[in-house]
Amino acid sequence: MTALSAPLAITLGDPAGIGPEVILGAWTRLRAERRAPPAFVVGGPMLLRGLAERLGIDCPIVPIADPAEAMFASAAGLPVMAGLDGPPTPASPSPDGARLALASLRWGAKLTLSGLAAGLVTAPIAKSALAAVGWDYPGQTEFLADACGRPYRDAVMMLAGPSLRTVPLTVHVALAEVPGLISAELITHKARIVAQGLRRDFRILHPRLAIAALNPHAGEGGQFGNEDAAVIAPAIAALRAEGIDAFGPVPGDALFTPRARTGYDAALCMYHDQALIPLKALEFDEGVNVTLGLPIIRTSPDHGTAFDIAGQGIADPGAMAAAIVMAAEMAAARSGCGA
Amino acid sequence: MTALSAPLAITLGDPAGIGPEVILGAWTRLRAERRAPPAFVVGGPMLLRGLAERLGIDCPIVPIADPAEAMFASAAGLPVMAGLDGPPTPASPSPDGARLALASLRWGAKLTLSGLAAGLVTAPIAKSALAAVGWDYPGQTEFLADACGRPYRDAVMMLAGPSLRTVPLTVHVALAEVPGLISAELITHKARIVAQGLRRDFRILHPRLAIAALNPHAGEGGQFGNEDAAVIAPAIAALRAEGIDAFGPVPGDALFTPRARTGYDAALCMYHDQALIPLKALEFDEGVNVTLGLPIIRTSPDHGTAFDIAGQGIADPGAMAAAIVMAAEMAAARSGCGA
Repeated sequence: MTALSAPLAITLGDPAGIGPEVILGAWTRLRAERRAPPAFVVGGPMLLRGLAERLGIDCPIVPIADPAEAMFASAAGLPVMAGLDGPPTPASPSPDGARLALASLRWGAKLTLSGLAAGLVTAPIAKSALAAVGWDYPGQTEFLADACGRPYRDAVMMLAGPSLRTVPLTVHVALAEVPGLISAELITHKARIVAQGLRRDFRILHPRLAIAALNPHAGEGGQFGNEDAAVIAPAIAALRAEGIDAFGPVPGDALFTPRARTGYDAALCMYHDQALIPLKALEFDEGVNVTLGLPIIRTSPDHGTAFDIAGQGIADPGAMAAAIVMAAEMAAARSGCGA
Repeated sequence: MTALSAPLAITLGDPAGIGPEVILGAWTRLRAERRAPPAFVVGGPMLLRGLAERLGIDCPIVPIADPAEAMFASAAGLPVMAGLDGPPTPASPSPDGARLALASLRWGAKLTLSGLAAGLVTAPIAKSALAAVGWDYPGQTEFLADACGRPYRDAVMMLAGPSLRTVPLTVHVALAEVPGLISAELITHKARIVAQGLRRDFRILHPRLAIAALNPHAGEGGQFGNEDAAVIAPAIAALRAEGIDAFGPVPGDALFTPRARTGYDAALCMYHDQALIPLKALEFDEGVNVTLGLPIIRTSPDHGTAFDIAGQGIADPGAMAAAIVMAAEMAAARSGCGA
């Protein structure tokens, strides 16, 4: 357990998804292992109590009226902010559920921005369900950037597991669009944010950033594409010139061997699958999505709502537990009072 | 050890690379573990003896004049065909070395095609060194397709490790070219060859083929590219209609989780890194490159000549050992007389 000056805020996520049950499962597991940091769920005491009963999870719910109560209430159970609630509705997405998810996210963001929460852990939402009730963000990350008054491009997604951190420089775009989106400016902008985030929130004094190649064999001297030499290599040179320990371009398949993984603190990848394939192959149920570049700490489990299995008690709470622990470690690192 | 009717032929590879030393290392290891199948090296008795002495490897060299002698000679040491040789020249690439590598490859292919060898294991060559002495193939695989009288496109590269087999449908091309190269015809042609190869050479009666998506989240309903729905899905339907158990398109990052890997016998990937990243992350020093679709059995270790470390005795012989064992298992499966 880590020393924090304020508790973590955990949003409910879509009540039709696995969010509420992985919160219950993760909290129960962390508490049993004496690893639970001070934390509270942003709304849903009735919902979580009903769900725990239905699933047979022994997790007492402690309604609280102020985040500060969570610093002490956790001995009795899972602290949950009262004042926002709904019925448990696993596997039944609805506009009411989407509105509840959104209210929890908004409130959690506000509490974290104000400092009443030390960091924000977000449970999964369904973008299409939220869009149907008038929300128009591509995802929670962009919403949070906006809530923090930052442009979307400053919110950098890092996937982190016990032995690997990867950053996809482009994310939800067709593979055909990727080569055109890779620019030296994109690489240097995000690399600076990653380097600063690793220093501030992970206590890595001199972060080593491996930069992946776009093409196989980094283009093999220009035979298979010139982006590695023309775009990525100059970006790395620019980063090094300003004192950031970046290296590459490293051919994608050489970047994730066990030996290679010991040589960097984060791998910056050119596209979604290049970053996500190794992470999910190696850290399958402990992948945490960390948002760097914002004034607040934010993590989330690297999975979706999984409406199809919600309410059956089979969802793995491992990633949520890892997201909670990582947020606590980041908050402690940032405040300088960690283990 | 596997029962074979003829020994395996192992080519020397470029004598300036790590090929000869990983052959010595792999053979020594397999022999100590009593896992060495009947096999011989195609040329180089003097070269291998000199190299073994220099590296302090206790591996007696037994010159032979006929492949059949290898069935019995291995009790005394590593059988090596006499009549083709050169000096050990680690880390010093030269035209003479390239010519020796080529002669070993040509002879090995001939012996395997004629049935005097049960399969061919190729040590790494350097394409640029061979090009300088007049060889004009993109790689050994294409050379072997030609030697077998088959078009290049029939020679399908499969990367195989203990827990994962992947097939890159496109290989050494710029990432920007990949979307334009993916066609239903390409997918079905290669999938048929993979299914047949798994049945014939791996004794998998009903091979399950996972087909990767090109785009993140398989395009998320067309939001990030339409190739998954427009090209890959119809190819899968066509394969299923002819009785091949293909499924997908599976988003790349979902395809290599431990649970997902239990659901298929090979993953057909759209591009180089999608296939090679998970393989090298998970099976780093045991990756074997298998050529399917040719009348001969052919494997090779999934690494290059590594001129820079040749002759130091630090090259890992694990992949060469795995390539030898896999070729022996494939030959036994094909002849129906394996373990």
